[in-house]
Amino acid sequence: MTTIKDSIHGYIEVDPTAAAIMDTAPIQRLRYVRQLGTVQLVYPSANHTRFEHSLGVYHLASRAVEQLGLGADLSERLRAAALVHDVGHGPFGHQTEPAIERHLGRHHDEIGWLLSETELGTVLVDQGLDPDAVAATVDGRGPLGELVSGALDVDRMDYLVRDAHHTGVPYGTIDHDRLVYALRIVDGTLALESGNVASAESALIARTLMNATVYRHHVSRIAGAMLDRASERVLSDGVVAPERFARLTDEELLATLADHEPTADVATRLRERRLYKRAIWARREDVPDRFRGLEYDRTRALEREIAETAGVDPTAVVVDSPAEPTSPESRARIVVDGELRRLEDRSSLVAGLDACAREIWRLGVYAPPDALEAVRDAAAAVFDVTPEIAP
Amino acid sequence: MTTIKDSIHGYIEVDPTAAAIMDTAPIQRLRYVRQLGTVQLVYPSANHTRFEHSLGVYHLASRAVEQLGLGADLSERLRAAALVHDVGHGPFGHQTEPAIERHLGRHHDEIGWLLSETELGTVLVDQGLDPDAVAATVDGRGPLGELVSGALDVDRMDYLVRDAHHTGVPYGTIDHDRLVYALRIVDGTLALESGNVASAESALIARTLMNATVYRHHVSRIAGAMLDRASERVLSDGVVAPERFARLTDEELLATLADHEPTADVATRLRERRLYKRAIWARREDVPDRFRGLEYDRTRALEREIAETAGVDPTAVVVDSPAEPTSPESRARIVVDGELRRLEDRSSLVAGLDACAREIWRLGVYAPPDALEAVRDAAAAVFDVTPEIAP
Amino acid sequence: MTTIKDSIHGYIEVDPTAAAIMDTAPIQRLRYVRQLGTVQLVYPSANHTRFEHSLGVYHLASRAVEQLGLGADLSERLRAAALVHDVGHGPFGHQTEPAIERHLGRHHDEIGWLLSETELGTVLVDQGLDPDAVAATVDGRGPLGELVSGALDVDRMDYLVRDAHHTGVPYGTIDHDRLVYALRIVDGTLALESGNVASAESALIARTLMNATVYRHHVSRIAGAMLDRASERVLSDGVVAPERFARLTDEELLATLADHEPTADVATRLRERRLYKRAIWARREDVPDRFRGLEYDRTRALEREIAETAGVDPTAVVVDSPAEPTSPESRARIVVDGELRRLEDRSSLVAGLDACAREIWRLGVYAPPDALEAVRDAAAAVFDVTPEIAP
Amino acid sequence: MTTIKDSIHGYIEVDPTAAAIMDTAPIQRLRYVRQLGTVQLVYPSANHTRFEHSLGVYHLASRAVEQLGLGADLSERLRAAALVHDVGHGPFGHQTEPAIERHLGRHHDEIGWLLSETELGTVLVDQGLDPDAVAATVDGRGPLGELVSGALDVDRMDYLVRDAHHTGVPYGTIDHDRLVYALRIVDGTLALESGNVASAESALIARTLMNATVYRHHVSRIAGAMLDRASERVLSDGVVAPERFARLTDEELLATLADHEPTADVATRLRERRLYKRAIWARREDVPDRFRGLEYDRTRALEREIAETAGVDPTAVVVDSPAEPTSPESRARIVVDGELRRLEDRSSLVAGLDACAREIWRLGVYAPPDALEAVRDAAAAVFDVTPEIAP
Repeated sequence: MTTIKDSIHGYIEVDPTAAAIMDTAPIQRLRYVRQLGTVQLVYPSANHTRFEHSLGVYHLASRAVEQLGLGADLSERLRAAALVHDVGHGPFGHQTEPAIERHLGRHHDEIGWLLSETELGTVLVDQGLDPDAVAATVDGRGPLGELVSGALDVDRMDYLVRDAHHTGVPYGTIDHDRLVYALRIVDGTLALESGNVASAESALIARTLMNATVYRHHVSRIAGAMLDRASERVLSDGVVAPERFARLTDEELLATLADHEPTADVATRLRERRLYKRAIWARREDVPDRFRGLEYDRTRALEREIAETAGVDPTAVVVDSPAEPTSPESRARIVVDGELRRLEDRSSLVAGLDACAREIWRLGVYAPPDALEAVRDAAAAVFDVTPEIAP
Repeated sequence: MTTIKDSIHGYIEVDPTAAAIMDTAPIQRLRYVRQLGTVQLVYPSANHTRFEHSLGVYHLASRAVEQLGLGADLSERLRAAALVHDVGHGPFGHQTEPAIERHLGRHHDEIGWLLSETELGTVLVDQGLDPDAVAATVDGRGPLGELVSGALDVDRMDYLVRDAHHTGVPYGTIDHDRLVYALRIVDGTLALESGNVASAESALIARTLMNATVYRHHVSRIAGAMLDRASERVLSDGVVAPERFARLTDEELLATLADHEPTADVATRLRERRLYKRAIWARREDVPDRFRGLEYDRTRALEREIAETAGVDPTAVVVDSPAEPTSPESRARIVVDGELRRLEDRSSLVAGLDACAREIWRLGVYAPPDALEAVRDAAAAVFDVTPEIAP
Repeated sequence: MTTIKDSIHGYIEVDPTAAAIMDTAPIQRLRYVRQLGTVQLVYPSANHTRFEHSLGVYHLASRAVEQLGLGADLSERLRAAALVHDVGHGPFGHQTEPAIERHLGRHHDEIGWLLSETELGTVLVDQGLDPDAVAATVDGRGPLGELVSGALDVDRMDYLVRDAHHTGVPYGTIDHDRLVYALRIVDGTLALESGNVASAESALIARTLMNATVYRHHVSRIAGAMLDRASERVLSDGVVAPERFARLTDEELLATLADHEPTADVATRLRERRLYKRAIWARREDVPDRFRGLEYDRTRALEREIAETAGVDPTAVVVDSPAEPTSPESRARIVVDGELRRLEDRSSLVAGLDACAREIWRLGVYAPPDALEAVRDAAAAVFDVTPEIAP
Repeated sequence: MTTIKDSIHGYIEVDPTAAAIMDTAPIQRLRYVRQLGTVQLVYPSANHTRFEHSLGVYHLASRAVEQLGLGADLSERLRAAALVHDVGHGPFGHQTEPAIERHLGRHHDEIGWLLSETELGTVLVDQGLDPDAVAATVDGRGPLGELVSGALDVDRMDYLVRDAHHTGVPYGTIDHDRLVYALRIVDGTLALESGNVASAESALIARTLMNATVYRHHVSRIAGAMLDRASERVLSDGVVAPERFARLTDEELLATLADHEPTADVATRLRERRLYKRAIWARREDVPDRFRGLEYDRTRALEREIAETAGVDPTAVVVDSPAEPTSPESRARIVVDGELRRLEDRSSLVAGLDACAREIWRLGVYAPPDALEAVRDAAAAVFDVTPEIAP
């Protein structure tokens, strides 16, 4: 057993299989992909990486399989899946996910291709693991795949606490110890034992509050949207192949953007934190239905329309209309009076949290400071919203 | 300036007026009144006291008056009120409050009598403070009294974090730094500046979750109910005068109970943690309206009725039917779009949290282990509930 | 397995044997004995108890026996010994230890008498444990007794971290996780595996710094010395039998002092924190050899002499000349280059720390404020020291 | 005032001058320079940056100038110097410092050239500050320059705590609050007020223990030495000009190494954590004087000599013989008995800590795994040491 010191879980014992997996290039690459992408432009301490998070998820999975008393083979597969679960993330994690999906047709949880194309697959086989089964587990399929990706997964238990520790925002401090202790297998599915409604709610609450103050902070959203447009450009221009793009580190992507003239300005702006500003920041109730959760093509067409009206370059307009929020945690199962129930059926909080998530939804239109006024007027007309910036 | 090290706030600077107040016997007594009463029987680390909490509330008040830019006189009064705000608590704090109210007719926030009867009042006068004004502030009245007792008070900001630190339960970890920074006076009333809905919600959430896991834990409720019945007995029997009772420490009360034959058994049970058990533990929806939030006389009559039916001594039955929950935090004011709003009007969470508070409500009937079965059957009949113990 | 939430170690799993032991009156009593006695008069948050500490020591012992791969019987004995290791402490722990030794002839680590006289012994037998073997282990004797009481014991690992958490003083934050991981049995004795000199030093450093800022703080020493004199009086006056005295709680002792006229004043002074002050506070190098580490009878004779010279009541003079400091941690064994060495032979820090411990040694003479000047002059003459108060 | 949330200090208030300085490219660049360079290869959570550290140092400087009651102009200069104090660091901070000194002749504390060549100088002037005075302060010169760079500087107070928080190693947890509170100006120089010897020692201890477990960990030293050799190569080969090199980010340096054929292998090895291993790791007492603290040219000559003997490529041998340790903290001034003393004259620990620092000194010779044996034999002969790896 190797032990590694972690800022969240203290000493983490790493079994030999996991140690071999960790030593591969695809996992080592995660040292250079920040867990929260551009959030560090708002919370300067948020520089933790997907590598340390992966190690933390592995640790919680190890404790969970022990708690559940699982057999050796399944335990090993679950631990391995926990360790590699984020290997499919591109640079800046979720923030380049849409661009990768458009060009590669793959979600970050689909890691089969990575296993077959890199040494990672070979190492799994060498360690007696079936790469397909590991890939399925990462995608939440197969026996107890839900432990790695599901309503009660250890991914969530790690990132909420870790993000809280590294941003300094306390809302994510859930009681992951208790959640792991409370895990049970009931009727073949993962559930929390009786008496843990409050713990299950706390994870849901933590994510809702972290969304409001960290994950969906407007400065990070602006930077993320700028990054998406520039990523699209280097991909469309053939500067970098999609398969290669998906395996860049954060900094390699910035270097790629800096080296391509049409995206060089965005690279400098991100580096020096000279970001676009909010021209429009509109609440859900003020935005017509048809403008919520816009498809990508429609988004780009609207950007061009606004740019034309405003008389500015199309790259000077970024429209950001995210999809409606969802809350997977609310489907967590919990034992109540000896029966299995969904959290949402037992918790009086879930509806409130869903409403809360809708409350923080915003339509954003962003532009460089010198084009802000023109873009605001044009966008207000296009979206039929009043141009004030709601807080 | 004296500085005192605190486990929550680090170094606390104590001004000379506060230092003089701290040196009085009524404040020193708070060293011997646990902040959470019998909760230590569930969470063994929860031994923090109302003394250190008072110091913490004083510290947050000091920072708040500075943040708000208040004048010297008002600042001094608010700081003093923060420091003495808990001086009216009897032994075990809230857990003997009903007994004290029955016999003394006073709530713990009414401290006027204490100021006039003890050296505390003299010290306040010596320090140039008006005891009546300080007493009014503690009661939430007068200029900015709401800072000490109100929807956004510093009392709450301290105890949630302190209770989390000392129990080891993380849900109370609100961002008190941000709440204090966000305080504003708008139209003469305390409010949070724009952009702090999530922070305000976090305090409400923290209390709801701490209620579910700590404050309303059934073991602590059982011990508290046993304490109330024994307190009633020593007061009714004239063993100790109400004015004296209200100023006992936790341990002095236990010693008083131990020395009086009819209450000696309860004292030993509390000391050795051999508590009554739950005969009935019924959800709100299973309990007829007329049995929720029972008046004290009615409660005692029901206990006698159940005891008679069960054929046990009346002291072997304790009925615990608390009042409906309230949430003062939901009335906190917050600036939204330049206007003052109530949190409950802006937060989609408040309704969910109110429902959640109703969810954790329980009717309890408690009895010694050897009388449990008999009391359960008798109580189930009297309350018309099924005798299962809901979790 | 029962689980209990602790502020330091999170969830602690308690095995059935330990649960039965915990439920006995002698262990429950530890809820009412503060870990740091009168230190709460300096650090108001230091109200943690020997009960929660005992639980923490049990937890570390559980992890250590697992780490060392010990057999079931020895493991159970060590865990039980860890849990009961402090049961022999009198009220205020170390602060009444000298009085108890004078009157009862027993050190707190000798718990055999307690096991035979209380239900604790019976419960141990019921659980298949040998009370004599458990008592020997608590005293550091028998197989791996050093894990409970020795240079690398789990007692120390818990209290340094717990005292830091509850006082707010950070110096005690040693890496107990690493120390437990590093435990090995080499040649039948407990040792740290190679590469852990820094970890071993950290425990020694932590205690040295905690001594300087917390454990030997003059305010706590004054209160402790006052307590000792009053304890001596109630014991000498036969107010309470030594066996009974040794089993009082903190508050029961204060009540006992308050009820006896000659000690009532001290009880009130401790309660209201109106303590004696330093008349003399002299460094080691300024105090003649013969006055360092005074025997008790000599101490009391000197107090009478000073009182007479000063013309004050003998109870108005307290002389406090502690023994020379020792450092058991420096004898911890550690593997270096494959061989077993003492930490003091490998660590360049040990000598420095020993000197540091001598540095903070002080001779104190304490008196009530109104007798301070008279006592100072008399004591300076008796001890042949200059009367300044060194910081 | 802008406020920024920090993982260590909570909310940091940033004055307008500091906000303007923060917005410059040289300061924003520090977001991409890790505080601990290659330490993240040992402690995966150690990804915090010189940007957040600079903010923390600024915060402590703000509190210190307030505590000391300094005038507005000096305060502003000290705060600005605190914020920019690390701007002179090259990529990977201290780890490229020798290469930069060899080629540029400048230490990282000499930032005058940066101020005159970048927008940073202009912004300082715009804010009414004298760039030369700020540069002198960063270098520890001028009025209270020692607050930014000296025995009691705020740099140290921040990094010890921050490095502890982000590595998860607890030894760095000094009491920076108390140190700042204890700062005084005595005879025109910075000192700690009486009664703070233990606090001053704690900073010295923390650094000694952090050295042993974190800063001087052999894996990080190996990576750092590999980085130095590769940096030397790209500088010598003229791949990048020294002035440009000094302003690269961590990742830009790795990209530069990857693009130059002779250093590409090192870049991949660092990226994938396939590092050289220890061929020799010898204690101070086993290494002849003439081989301790080797000059750079001599080091490289020895590498070539060893490589020739071993029959391997010269890049396959890295010799690492650091200078003797120093301890600036031991010269901190402290008030004792009303007089100003050096900590080293008052603390019995300093000599022990100095010896401890010598204890952890090691001569290292590193090589790729496939050349390890050959290099070990050759190096043992050259250095006249036994080839075992001391732990």
